[in-house]
Amino acid sequence: MTVDRLLPTPEAHDLLDLTTDLATRELAGKVDDFEARGEFPREVLRTLGRSGLLGLPYPEAVGGAAQPYEVYVQVLEILAGTWLGIAEAVSVHTLSCFPVAEFGTGKQQAMLPEMVGGELLGAYALSEPQGGSDAAGLTTRAVADGDDFLVTGTKAWITHAGRADFYNIFCRTGGPGPRGISCLLADADTPGLMPQATEKLMGLRSSAPAQIVLENARIPRERLVGEENQGFTIAMRALDAGRLGIAACAVGLAQAAVDYATAYAKEREQFGKPIASFQGIGFMLADMATQVSAARALLLSAARLKDAGRPFSIEAAKAKLFATDMAMKVTTDAVQVLGGAGYVSDHPVERWFREAKVLQIVEGTNQIQRLVIARSMTGS
Amino acid sequence: MTVDRLLPTPEAHDLLDLTTDLATRELAGKVDDFEARGEFPREVLRTLGRSGLLGLPYPEAVGGAAQPYEVYVQVLEILAGTWLGIAEAVSVHTLSCFPVAEFGTGKQQAMLPEMVGGELLGAYALSEPQGGSDAAGLTTRAVADGDDFLVTGTKAWITHAGRADFYNIFCRTGGPGPRGISCLLADADTPGLMPQATEKLMGLRSSAPAQIVLENARIPRERLVGEENQGFTIAMRALDAGRLGIAACAVGLAQAAVDYATAYAKEREQFGKPIASFQGIGFMLADMATQVSAARALLLSAARLKDAGRPFSIEAAKAKLFATDMAMKVTTDAVQVLGGAGYVSDHPVERWFREAKVLQIVEGTNQIQRLVIARSMTGS
Amino acid sequence: MTVDRLLPTPEAHDLLDLTTDLATRELAGKVDDFEARGEFPREVLRTLGRSGLLGLPYPEAVGGAAQPYEVYVQVLEILAGTWLGIAEAVSVHTLSCFPVAEFGTGKQQAMLPEMVGGELLGAYALSEPQGGSDAAGLTTRAVADGDDFLVTGTKAWITHAGRADFYNIFCRTGGPGPRGISCLLADADTPGLMPQATEKLMGLRSSAPAQIVLENARIPRERLVGEENQGFTIAMRALDAGRLGIAACAVGLAQAAVDYATAYAKEREQFGKPIASFQGIGFMLADMATQVSAARALLLSAARLKDAGRPFSIEAAKAKLFATDMAMKVTTDAVQVLGGAGYVSDHPVERWFREAKVLQIVEGTNQIQRLVIARSMTGS
Amino acid sequence: MTVDRLLPTPEAHDLLDLTTDLATRELAGKVDDFEARGEFPREVLRTLGRSGLLGLPYPEAVGGAAQPYEVYVQVLEILAGTWLGIAEAVSVHTLSCFPVAEFGTGKQQAMLPEMVGGELLGAYALSEPQGGSDAAGLTTRAVADGDDFLVTGTKAWITHAGRADFYNIFCRTGGPGPRGISCLLADADTPGLMPQATEKLMGLRSSAPAQIVLENARIPRERLVGEENQGFTIAMRALDAGRLGIAACAVGLAQAAVDYATAYAKEREQFGKPIASFQGIGFMLADMATQVSAARALLLSAARLKDAGRPFSIEAAKAKLFATDMAMKVTTDAVQVLGGAGYVSDHPVERWFREAKVLQIVEGTNQIQRLVIARSMTGS
Repeated sequence: MTVDRLLPTPEAHDLLDLTTDLATRELAGKVDDFEARGEFPREVLRTLGRSGLLGLPYPEAVGGAAQPYEVYVQVLEILAGTWLGIAEAVSVHTLSCFPVAEFGTGKQQAMLPEMVGGELLGAYALSEPQGGSDAAGLTTRAVADGDDFLVTGTKAWITHAGRADFYNIFCRTGGPGPRGISCLLADADTPGLMPQATEKLMGLRSSAPAQIVLENARIPRERLVGEENQGFTIAMRALDAGRLGIAACAVGLAQAAVDYATAYAKEREQFGKPIASFQGIGFMLADMATQVSAARALLLSAARLKDAGRPFSIEAAKAKLFATDMAMKVTTDAVQVLGGAGYVSDHPVERWFREAKVLQIVEGTNQIQRLVIARSMTGS
Repeated sequence: MTVDRLLPTPEAHDLLDLTTDLATRELAGKVDDFEARGEFPREVLRTLGRSGLLGLPYPEAVGGAAQPYEVYVQVLEILAGTWLGIAEAVSVHTLSCFPVAEFGTGKQQAMLPEMVGGELLGAYALSEPQGGSDAAGLTTRAVADGDDFLVTGTKAWITHAGRADFYNIFCRTGGPGPRGISCLLADADTPGLMPQATEKLMGLRSSAPAQIVLENARIPRERLVGEENQGFTIAMRALDAGRLGIAACAVGLAQAAVDYATAYAKEREQFGKPIASFQGIGFMLADMATQVSAARALLLSAARLKDAGRPFSIEAAKAKLFATDMAMKVTTDAVQVLGGAGYVSDHPVERWFREAKVLQIVEGTNQIQRLVIARSMTGS
Repeated sequence: MTVDRLLPTPEAHDLLDLTTDLATRELAGKVDDFEARGEFPREVLRTLGRSGLLGLPYPEAVGGAAQPYEVYVQVLEILAGTWLGIAEAVSVHTLSCFPVAEFGTGKQQAMLPEMVGGELLGAYALSEPQGGSDAAGLTTRAVADGDDFLVTGTKAWITHAGRADFYNIFCRTGGPGPRGISCLLADADTPGLMPQATEKLMGLRSSAPAQIVLENARIPRERLVGEENQGFTIAMRALDAGRLGIAACAVGLAQAAVDYATAYAKEREQFGKPIASFQGIGFMLADMATQVSAARALLLSAARLKDAGRPFSIEAAKAKLFATDMAMKVTTDAVQVLGGAGYVSDHPVERWFREAKVLQIVEGTNQIQRLVIARSMTGS
Repeated sequence: MTVDRLLPTPEAHDLLDLTTDLATRELAGKVDDFEARGEFPREVLRTLGRSGLLGLPYPEAVGGAAQPYEVYVQVLEILAGTWLGIAEAVSVHTLSCFPVAEFGTGKQQAMLPEMVGGELLGAYALSEPQGGSDAAGLTTRAVADGDDFLVTGTKAWITHAGRADFYNIFCRTGGPGPRGISCLLADADTPGLMPQATEKLMGLRSSAPAQIVLENARIPRERLVGEENQGFTIAMRALDAGRLGIAACAVGLAQAAVDYATAYAKEREQFGKPIASFQGIGFMLADMATQVSAARALLLSAARLKDAGRPFSIEAAKAKLFATDMAMKVTTDAVQVLGGAGYVSDHPVERWFREAKVLQIVEGTNQIQRLVIARSMTGS
């Protein structure tokens, strides 16, 4: 189903058309193979970078497209409808550019053109094994050593670990709690920075995360992004934007599932007519489509708040929560519409079903989103 | 909680502020009394009319405010948060002006200033006892008699029946099915047009509907709105817009419930602290707020499609379906947050809970919405 | 729909037949009138008492029927399907006999025949205004005064307040927390025991609760039920059984709603055929019936545990939680099946919808049930 | 969590203990390996057969254990909690013995001891590629040829295809519709009976189904089970019992998921305490446990109806519908409780999540169950 989108500019229309075209030509034919083998599609990302899709929200001066988030998230949505791993990679990479783009020194920002152009792939290392949801309690420690920091600890669930060219390492430079954390920009070849084997995921296998062990990893002080001990603020600002990215992935995944299930239901006959003509299926499709529309509208509403410079953190949390819970439900139902056919790898819906689950977990589990929203309402 | 709204114009901000002010001053103090007695607030509506709130989407030339639906529905939302009966009345009245405003003759449109100004209150008589959901099968018949039609039949669930000054009567002037229906504009004092006793509703008692019995009601042919047998098209076009109105009512009702429950949960203590500080309550509030935000975003998205001249019928159906199901769930949970206090008339949440239910039923039950959406997807 | 019940004895069959017969003859014709007027049906309860329905689980020696809970709860279910107020009254009365029956002195138990026979109606006064969910924190205080206690405090949400002949008053005789609470059996004419005006409920109006203010209410020490400071144990034991009663009320209410909606859907025609023949309605009815069957099975499973002398407290909490959430959902959908007709007082479904809500709140809100279940699982 | 079960006999207790013991010793260590490789565990089934678990509901005279369904389904439940593929295989095998056990000739029943003892593994070939849900419309045709039938057509989604020793082939021997179908008992080496490659399933890989192509497969007339054209009745009777088996699988899978998630939540700390101690997690666990208890109770209720000789078809459909929808929800939430850890193959919850989905589809999709239930209620 073609979604009727009210876009802010003709340029945005062209961008979405370009994205749809790229998805059809470059992604659709590769996804099954890469996912089956769990191979990271570095070259595909390079192609996207050259097409300008890896730095959409950043200024044109650094090679970005200066697009509003309202448009950027719709690009992600389209990519996710074809290959979630790619959309997730684009979202994580864009997130990884955020600290330097917003808080970086001039020298750090000199790297931005290569970053947003996709020549340098980024990773965002915040989570740790013992504190997935409790970012403020992270224990990876950076100790000053001359003009460098020596960083020791373990980061977990890091997308692009072992594939990235640069890492945002959030580590403790001060006392306990959120005010003792800094953000360091590390090169991939930093001695002592050791990506581990990738996790064996149920889905999203082409973009599986890994742990990173840091043992006295030496990172120059000039790679401090923002002020010392300002890291938590940077991390949270980045995550707010990152939540919009995950929400967009969920909307795209779910839209693809609705479209596929609808097409199948119009073809598949039982009892002498297309199953789509039975209300038992038709009403299910209607509910699925309604949920997707609501999630997209909520996502765009939050993105527009960000674009307008308004506080958008809570609305982004709502969008992430709603869109990913929705995607889980919609993909579960899409498999159901296909029946047995939905459970085999001949059709993509079983993949979407497996992939949807991870979106309820990443970049703040949906329980953490509820916590964030509840606190904003109740002050407790 | 103050909702952060991105509005298209400063004028729209003023309009919403005016509405909030009117709701506080004119509605909040009256609602309980009128609802308890089931009395129709004709004078309150007149006040709203004089403030310009009864003809918002209509051209300034006829006394309207030429507001986009995006703004109009937010006015409804604010009204509904204080008094659903008034919001529903405004929505129905606005709907009742639609046929004349869009399809009326010059002579008919000469009535518009009094209509949109609220001096003449409107009703919209489409449903019948035997065919609530099957509008195309209506059986009220109009027979030509000289320059008049003689209309005979029964209309059901007509809001403002017995209170309105004019009625849109949809009746059969041709063969069976949707193409044999016309729209006639009848004055309240039409001989043979007989409103019955109002229905005994569980809620929305100040604006309860009634049947209208027509026995050879004589309506001049010059009161034919649009072409003969074009009535079904007119009715459906009006209903598309009307669905946005009901969705707006649902969003406003639910927002009020979230706000009230949140405030209560911050005050009410159990086990030595505010119940809002327990995740069992906090997460519930977060889910409620998220659902309301999603519904509002979907509503505004559909309204903007209408304002942009795009097809919006299906998105309006989705908004009506989603927003009213959401309001039922959110108000049910709001009562739960208050516990026993939520079940007594000392607090408005029990009223909102009763009122929410009717929104899932009116202007096309949510089953009909699903049917409409499913058909648009599957073509069957 | 006749429910196919596997009952333990032929006697149980006879008892359910008797109950069905009484419900049809004595309750069905009175319920609307009593609910509309909010009048307490004292005489109806007397009739039930004389038929032996007010002391079913108690020994024959005291006038009870020595029925297992498995059977007793099915009696409640049948009553609730006709008149929830009566079923609730029977459940509360049975609960009120529990302390004396299980923990009473010989002298106290001498009252049991009149209690279980329904000549003396009971009330159970545990909740307080400030601590609805926090029973262990109750503040009503009993001070020894010679051979009496002088009791001062306020009890809230007390069913049968002002109508009962005896009250179980839970009050603090010792230090803070659960171990400082005792249960006193007070006569209705105890000086200083002052029932207040009944609450204005949204439903269950014939059996509305009220506060009881106690000001130095003098209760003889010989009316201490169980040991001093054993009251919390007694209260919790009674509540475990009481939860089965509320679950039974929910099952009966929901079964009635399913049956009514199904019958309506088979009669009501739209688009030329009964709406029951559309899958959109048929699947909804199937889901409703499935939910009711699951709730009944869970209820009976918990009741059999109790009858077998096994720990049943957690399963009773699950039954109360599941059955009452189910009843809210099923009655909401039953109104929907009737459409506009469901929203008017011509049909009982709007009453059942209003009544279902209270069941999620009473005898431990469903949040408290979740807390109890969670603690049993996690030990925290 | 140990489930407190009220069992009909001490023998049943012993049987469940034996099953738990077998599951721990023989299944737990093998499941991951077999599932990863998609290998069918024929030897494990033989072990179960020798322990008497493959013919539980059948008479002792043929080597069965003469257990009521109430007990048999609890055996399945325990197996499914460790290895769904085995439980499913036991259920399908037991189903495959049903036609011969209930309708077979003396000569056919002579095979029963080897069948129920598990030396001969069975398959049940009803579904076809074009009519998964429309069994009465099957097109595989059997043509009489001397003392044989020649059978031609394609069967789909056949568990044990290619591994079974005998097949129940449902095929058309008469006119269209349910009354023209017969059941033939075919040996695995029947010429012209050609199992195809197994389906590539998302889960349940050790017990993946396959198509069977029949090309003039020659089956002796003496292998006709029951009367000619009685096959649909046989198929439906078997499916009624089979639904209880699938419901049992769902309950066992979900119970395992609740237990695992609960244990994890008690160990895993965030923000300085076990996540189980947060109501956001604790309430989720409570809801999951409640749903499992309700499903088990409904399952046992339906099984007891069958054991009592009462009509149980509709209650079995409800149990299948409720238990499998529940298992999908509960396993989705179990992954969520583990967060990122739940999404990797280090923990079994991601497997349970993938496996749960198939249960909503097999032996009548849950849409077909709703259809069956709705028809029984509405007669349409």
